[in-house]
Formats: sequence, C-alpha cells, structure tokens
Amino acid sequence: MTHNRRDFLKRAGLLAASGALIGANDCNSGKQNSQSNKGSKKMELTYKEYELKLKHVFTIAKNSRTTTPDMQVRIHYKGYTGYGEAAMPPYYPENPKSAKKFYEKLDLGQFKDPFQIEKILNYVDNVAEGNHFAKASIDIALHDLVGKLMDYPWYKIWGYDKTKTPSTSFTIGIDEPEMVKKKTEEAERFNVLKVKLGGGNDKEMINSVRSVAPEKPLYVDVNGGWKDKHKALDMVNWLEEQGIEFVEQPMPKDQIEDIAWLTQNSSLPIMADESVQRIQSVLDAYQVYDGINIKLMKCTGMREAHKMINLARSLNMKVLMGCMTATSCSISAAAQLAPAIDWADLDGNLLISNDPYEGVQVVDGKLVLPERPGIGIKPIKKI
Amino acid sequence: MTHNRRDFLKRAGLLAASGALIGANDCNSGKQNSQSNKGSKKMELTYKEYELKLKHVFTIAKNSRTTTPDMQVRIHYKGYTGYGEAAMPPYYPENPKSAKKFYEKLDLGQFKDPFQIEKILNYVDNVAEGNHFAKASIDIALHDLVGKLMDYPWYKIWGYDKTKTPSTSFTIGIDEPEMVKKKTEEAERFNVLKVKLGGGNDKEMINSVRSVAPEKPLYVDVNGGWKDKHKALDMVNWLEEQGIEFVEQPMPKDQIEDIAWLTQNSSLPIMADESVQRIQSVLDAYQVYDGINIKLMKCTGMREAHKMINLARSLNMKVLMGCMTATSCSISAAAQLAPAIDWADLDGNLLISNDPYEGVQVVDGKLVLPERPGIGIKPIKKI
Repeated sequence: MTHNRRDFLKRAGLLAASGALIGANDCNSGKQNSQSNKGSKKMELTYKEYELKLKHVFTIAKNSRTTTPDMQVRIHYKGYTGYGEAAMPPYYPENPKSAKKFYEKLDLGQFKDPFQIEKILNYVDNVAEGNHFAKASIDIALHDLVGKLMDYPWYKIWGYDKTKTPSTSFTIGIDEPEMVKKKTEEAERFNVLKVKLGGGNDKEMINSVRSVAPEKPLYVDVNGGWKDKHKALDMVNWLEEQGIEFVEQPMPKDQIEDIAWLTQNSSLPIMADESVQRIQSVLDAYQVYDGINIKLMKCTGMREAHKMINLARSLNMKVLMGCMTATSCSISAAAQLAPAIDWADLDGNLLISNDPYEGVQVVDGKLVLPERPGIGIKPIKKI
Repeated sequence: MTHNRRDFLKRAGLLAASGALIGANDCNSGKQNSQSNKGSKKMELTYKEYELKLKHVFTIAKNSRTTTPDMQVRIHYKGYTGYGEAAMPPYYPENPKSAKKFYEKLDLGQFKDPFQIEKILNYVDNVAEGNHFAKASIDIALHDLVGKLMDYPWYKIWGYDKTKTPSTSFTIGIDEPEMVKKKTEEAERFNVLKVKLGGGNDKEMINSVRSVAPEKPLYVDVNGGWKDKHKALDMVNWLEEQGIEFVEQPMPKDQIEDIAWLTQNSSLPIMADESVQRIQSVLDAYQVYDGINIKLMKCTGMREAHKMINLARSLNMKVLMGCMTATSCSISAAAQLAPAIDWADLDGNLLISNDPYEGVQVVDGKLVLPERPGIGIKPIKKI
C-alpha cells in the first residue's frame, strides 16, 4: 500500500489556499482579553508563551528538566474566546520561537464564519509545512470557540456517550527498583499504569511494579527499545503472563517487517506510537500494528484526531490516546474524544503545578468530562 | 487486503447491544404529530407508508413503473420532530413490509439522550442484519432531531462551507435517439448530465446527447454493462474525447481484477457504485476504483456516509453521492454532505410529483442548502 502524500494533500484541497498567505497580518499580538478584542466580528488570534512547571524532575535518557515550554493561544470572536495550546517538550522539533513564527503568518481575520472548520484548518495546514504542534493549538482554540458558539461540548457534537470514557493510565518511568515501587505506591489513585520498558531492566521493572500493585492493569511502552524480534516475542509472551494489556512501540519504527512479524505472532495488541503522526500514518500502520497512539500535538489537533479514530475503526484497529506534559487545555481537548477510544494515557496535566485551567477530571481513576461547551475548560488563574 | 466483516463489527462494538432487543416496544404506531407525542421526554418513533408518484414513467431493463414505495418516519422528542425516510425502489431487497417489521423491533425510548448518536445507531444497526434502507431512515430522523435540538444544520455541525456544494447531475436513461435528445433538451436547467450506458448503443447515446448539448459536462454510468476489459478501455478512451468526466461501474462488481486493470490504464476516473455499500466496501474499492458512489439508503445513513467520505479522502479517493427516487427528506439529508464531495447525483426529489417537503434547492444547476436546522426541510403537505 503506497501513498503519495503530496497527491493526497492536493486531492483533499489542502494545497488550494496558498494565495491566501499574501495579505495583512494583524494577529500577532501577545495580549489576551484586551478590550479591543471583546465583541470583534473578525476572528483574532492572540498568543503567549507559558512555561509549565513540573511537579517532579522529569528524567529521560539524556537529560533532566523541571519545565516544559508551552504556548497558550486564544481566538477571540464576537465576545467569545476559544482556548488552545501547544505543549512543546524539548525533544520535539518545535518550540515557542517556531510557533510564534507560524502564528505571525496566519490571517484568521479573512474568514467570516468560524464554523467553516474544514476550510479554515485546511488553510492553516497549508500556511507552512510541519508545525504540527502550532497547528494543533489553532485547531483546539477553533474547536473551543465553535463549541462555545454552539453551546455544546465536542463529545456531544460528535455524538459520544460521556460515560464511555476509559480510565487514564499514569506513567512509571525507567528507574531503580526502590524508586519504581515508590512511584507505583504514589500512583495508587490510578486504575492503570503505563510502565516504560526498553532500558535493559524490563523484568525487574515489571516485578517492582507487581510487588506493590499485583493486580493492577498495566500497559507497556518500549519506545522502540527492543531490536531483536525473537527476543521481543519472548518478552511479549512473558508480559502476557504478568497481565499486561498491550505493548507500545516495541521496536524502532523503521523495523517495519520485524514489527509486522511480532504483531502477527503476539497474543498482546502491539501499538504504534513513534510510527504515527497524522492520518496518513494510520494507513501505514495498518497490518503492521494492531492499533495506534494518537496525540493531538503530533496529528495537528482535534479535527484530524477525530478522523484518525474513525479510520482506525474502519480498519479494525485499536486506539490509544496519549499526550505531552500540558495544561488542562489540550488534555481536555483530547478527552472530548475519549468515549471513542480503547485506552487513554491522558495524564499530562497532572504532572504540572501551574495549570491555569480547570477541565477534565480524574475521578476514581476514570476521565470525567465537564459539561461546559467547547473543550470544557474554565480559566482559574491568569497566565 | 482482507477484512473480516464480523470481526470488524465486533471491534466497533456493533454487536454489543443485542440484549437490548428484549423489552417492550411502544413505537409501532403509524400516527404522526399526535397530541400524545408532543413534548414527550422519551424518543418516540412513528412511521407511515407513502407512495411516491413519479412525474414520468420509469423504465429499466425488465419493467416500467410509475410509483416508488417509501416509508416516512418521524422521531418525536420534547416537542421536536426529526424527519426520516426510506425510499425503496422495487429492485432492492427492502420494502415497506420489511421496514415495518424492522421498526417494530426498535425501542428508542430506552435512550435518554438523542445526542448519543453513536450508541443509538450502533444499537439500531445491531437489531437485525441488513435493513440498510430502514436503518438509514432512523439515522436521518435522528440527525434531523439532534440538529434541531442544537439549532444548526448538519453541514455546519460538520464544519463545511455551504458554498462548496457541487451542481447535481440529472440522469438520462437508455433510450432511442429521439427520446434521448428530447430528455437532454428538457434537462437544460442542469449543469451536468449523467448518461446511462451499457445497453449496446453507447456511442449513439452519447452522440444523441452531444447533438443537443455539445459542451455540457457529462458523467457516464454503465451499471456493470461492459464485460470485456479491452473493449471497456477503448470505450473509456473514446468517452474521454467526448469530454466525459468519469465512468461509473463499468463492469460487473465481481470482475475485480478487470476493473482494477481498467482503473490502472484509464485516464478517466473509474467510480464504484454497485461495489459499494457500507464503510467496509470503501476499503475493498481501494486500488480497484478511483472513487466511490455513496448512497444514504445503501450505507445506513448520514453517520456512516460522513465516515465514508473521510475514509475515502484519507485513501485519496474521489467521492460521488447518489440517491434513489425519494422525497426532499433523504435528498436534503444527503445534501448536507455535499460540500465535502466531488460530484453529486442528487436529483431523486425532482422526479416525483408529490414531494411533501421543501428542502435543498437546485439553483442554476447547483445544490443550495437551506439555513434550517437538522437536515433542513419543512413539511409543505400532509402525508
């Protein structure tokens, strides 16, 4: 199955609006809620850099950090404000500088009707290549705005049953046994844990978690850390005995044949993460993986995520949604889709100490969607 | 690419609600708008057989007819009424009797919130196999109801730009040259004609149309009438010289290899019609055809049609929407999706003399969507 991305874009009309780039750009203000924006009949974009403070030092292979760069965006229209966010961990190619550069290119004021989400977001998509995180922030703000104009939350507009949201998992990173046990204890309120493997101490990791939480459902994320397909299958078989529910990105994304073989022979679902960005990659993952991990920041937002879920369903694939460290803005946006997915890993807002919004809640481990319109958040602190 | 339909249904949760079949059924009344239905807090289904009177005698290979059997359905909820329809030409397996039998099995009153479209329609889908037309009528009525509750038309809820609707084609059936010329003249108000071929007089048909309308864009529908792929390719090449835009169902649907070969070698888009029913068949049509013809009656309604369009787009396939002879109810429902498609063949309401609704209009040949909420119709005559 081969796909020509450019042809696809052309067919979908995504390359049609390039002429629209020429023109005045009056949307690059950093102010929010200024008097001049109140009641404007044109959509106006404002944005502000906002540093997320992490509750705990976050350590991955090569470095540690205590903050995550983030952009908060707003679209103002007729007295309504739609909130959006681009959360940009440093190991991704985007950052506040690239996002600002992208926002400065946008002229949302040219569109008379925010309801024309398809047309507006096709334009945004075409303004520049890449910039998925920045595009997602606009997509989320536009959805929030339109949901507020309609006075309905998106889960309802999409016809979902809010009681069908799954529990969210909480992630246990690779660490020494004592620290893993401690973190597992601290995560008692969560119904599911996602355990990071691939660091050479896989069985020790699982045994440490199981010593504290012998019955809790566990997901496993290898982040491409296994290289040999036969050893990978042995590990999958062992993990199944430990009551693991699925294995995410077991091998590097370029080992397609090996992953397809593992998926074929594995009794546990094998999920794609690093292999999946936008809708086209769902087709690439078909018959290689059992399912996909969708992240709003990687797929350009709610519109494409919704389509990816429907596509995955028609391909008989499982769906997990993941996230970055982020505020309740983008987490609540993702949670609007949660009634339609199998598994949720939407804990990013629980990892920061300066969340400026109230939105989706975790009650008895389960995601609980607010009744508020749009993406369902309300500001609780000035940014 | 192989797909197990039953597995797919299972995965999508469509087989989950079978227990719901057991229970009281108080929805089999034929009355509409009765006092008891006004303001009910439960969804109530009513339905009525309604014979569509054709403006002209309709002749196909084996018989002629002047009417089309049809069921008009309504869902009542809190003083709102959602309208739906199953239009059932006699060459399809469904009829008013089978539809009534299906409706009698439904208990929509069990659902507290009409907004839960996914859950409700998964239940409806699972009540019995087949019955696509009857299912479509429920789907349309539910969408109309929810759109009215939201107070928005569906094209707007789906984020479409209503100015992007295509012109609708008007169909010229297989006939003698003089009659073809007469019909082409009568169809002057249409910007596009769909010419039926495959009756052994293909060139004569096109020449007759062209003698009256030398420049008008034409679509061609062969209804599987060609059998030899080489002759089919010769004809496609000749049709291209005559300015035809696409060819629909050139060969019988079981000649998959031949059709794939023709699609590969044809310069005109080759579209699937008889090969396409529901979303799964879009995947079957991939890399066999260039695009698909979606009909609400065949695909179970607006929900699945919307998903099929998104799936076809992600597969880089073209989309045509077609219809049965029908009232403005199901035609207006289909037209809500028209801004997202390439070509429309939505002329079914123009063929009857007793349309009880006003809905989508054809203005200068183009489909014009009303601003009314839901599917955008209003009753203009008692049924």
